[in-house]
Amino acid sequence: MTSASILRGLVLVSLSLATPAPAEDVRAAVDAGNRAFTAAFVRGDAKAVSELYTEDAQVIAPGAPVAKGRPAIAAAWQKAMESVKDVRLETADVESAGDLAVETGTVQLTAKSGALTNERYLVVWKRAKDGQWKLHRDIWNGE
Amino acid sequence: MTSASILRGLVLVSLSLATPAPAEDVRAAVDAGNRAFTAAFVRGDAKAVSELYTEDAQVIAPGAPVAKGRPAIAAAWQKAMESVKDVRLETADVESAGDLAVETGTVQLTAKSGALTNERYLVVWKRAKDGQWKLHRDIWNGE
Repeated sequence: MTSASILRGLVLVSLSLATPAPAEDVRAAVDAGNRAFTAAFVRGDAKAVSELYTEDAQVIAPGAPVAKGRPAIAAAWQKAMESVKDVRLETADVESAGDLAVETGTVQLTAKSGALTNERYLVVWKRAKDGQWKLHRDIWNGE
Repeated sequence: MTSASILRGLVLVSLSLATPAPAEDVRAAVDAGNRAFTAAFVRGDAKAVSELYTEDAQVIAPGAPVAKGRPAIAAAWQKAMESVKDVRLETADVESAGDLAVETGTVQLTAKSGALTNERYLVVWKRAKDGQWKLHRDIWNGE
């Protein structure tokens, strides 16, 4: 191997490390994640919802202790499903750097009683080694 | 210039692009930012607080509209200063990628009446072109 070919290899490795995922790809992953979230929520599958989160994710819901990790997150969403029948997420913006992406948006919750609530949320998405984007931090509040 | 020296230049540029800031440097910047925030808050300087945020930052406070941009953020903190005399931030963890860092923590607010409130917060910090880390998204809620 010549030193020029070693250098060429280094350039390729370095450039691939330095190249972030295109913003539109991250946005598409976030949109797909949110569709999966909504579908799992509406069919009442709290375990499937929790599997959209990273292993060490945190859900910081108003009026509840921080839910850390998938079992706690599944339990938290299971509880929410007792009173909420529908969620509508609307992404306002997504910014990313490397394996982290920050999404802000609004969510409309429909209670089983039919009552509507609007909240503002921030989700930090994290890209796992397999390339999958998962919810890593999830926090919201009401106006 | 030889093609080897061009390659060498490319390697150096690529490696510097690919090298993230060390985690301890990001943590130190977040700690310094939080000290500056607390100092400005306690002396009642809402404009100085707002200047710790990026130009297009958002503060998502429970029970209030989203404050977007420094003038709105200064006004929001000015209002908070009417009833809150002290803030104590405690960082739980910081994760970063490139120019974004995510901090979670707890804040204890001391009202002018002496009443204490505890909240959980998430702050997204963003590194500006000059290398300064600023608050970019700031959201919290109570347990």
